[in-house]
Amino acid sequence: MGNKAPPRYQLTRRTSVEIDGSSVYVRDCPARVMLDRLADKWTVLVIGQLATGTMRFAALRRAVDGVSQKMLTSTLRDLERDGLVKRQLYASVPPKVEYSLTPLGSSLVNSMKGLCLWAEDHIDQVLKARENFDKRSQRA
Amino acid sequence: MGNKAPPRYQLTRRTSVEIDGSSVYVRDCPARVMLDRLADKWTVLVIGQLATGTMRFAALRRAVDGVSQKMLTSTLRDLERDGLVKRQLYASVPPKVEYSLTPLGSSLVNSMKGLCLWAEDHIDQVLKARENFDKRSQRA
Repeated sequence: MGNKAPPRYQLTRRTSVEIDGSSVYVRDCPARVMLDRLADKWTVLVIGQLATGTMRFAALRRAVDGVSQKMLTSTLRDLERDGLVKRQLYASVPPKVEYSLTPLGSSLVNSMKGLCLWAEDHIDQVLKARENFDKRSQRA
Repeated sequence: MGNKAPPRYQLTRRTSVEIDGSSVYVRDCPARVMLDRLADKWTVLVIGQLATGTMRFAALRRAVDGVSQKMLTSTLRDLERDGLVKRQLYASVPPKVEYSLTPLGSSLVNSMKGLCLWAEDHIDQVLKARENFDKRSQRA
């Protein structure tokens, strides 16, 4: 991360030589590592649920069908460490833990929503494309 | 995928019982499977590069720093099968192969761009949050 303005995603074709700023196209750039973290279905689904408001662990786990306790724990911990999710512990008996998005986490919601809505809206076209591809492959 | 309008990502808190349409929140829904495919750093980076225009394999591999030949081949094949990327073979000597986005693939560009720009723009805040988290963890 140098002093020049970072080159931006997809504005130009790049080679690693040209790159001087923060770029997802450079393998060791922290932005690439972060993209890898964000580009994860559990991250996307958890942030989508927390976008509706504060939730407890059990409610999140019910909402994100198919996530294991271990995976949800580790996803939430990573999101907390990255400053995207806030974990609030209440010293009640039994102790209560609530999760919510930080302002930084909230700034991600629209992009993640875009991916999910795309998947829901275009899955029929994708399934049709796969069927055609597989037919062509069989003929070849 | 029933006849009712599908419930949409993040508009309401959901349980699997409520869900009747195409939803990324249901583990066996094809939309979830598709989200898993889309939420992948190589998919995001390849689509971002192809958004700049048609490219050959070697140029793509140079642009997406760190991708292996095997991973790029498999990413492109999956994207082609899903109808997002078109593979054009020219019967020249040596044969020439070019990749480009289909209209369906192009419709994904904005969402993917959102994720990448977010990672590039907010990485400093994320690194700062991690540092604070790790300091707090050491004290605890």
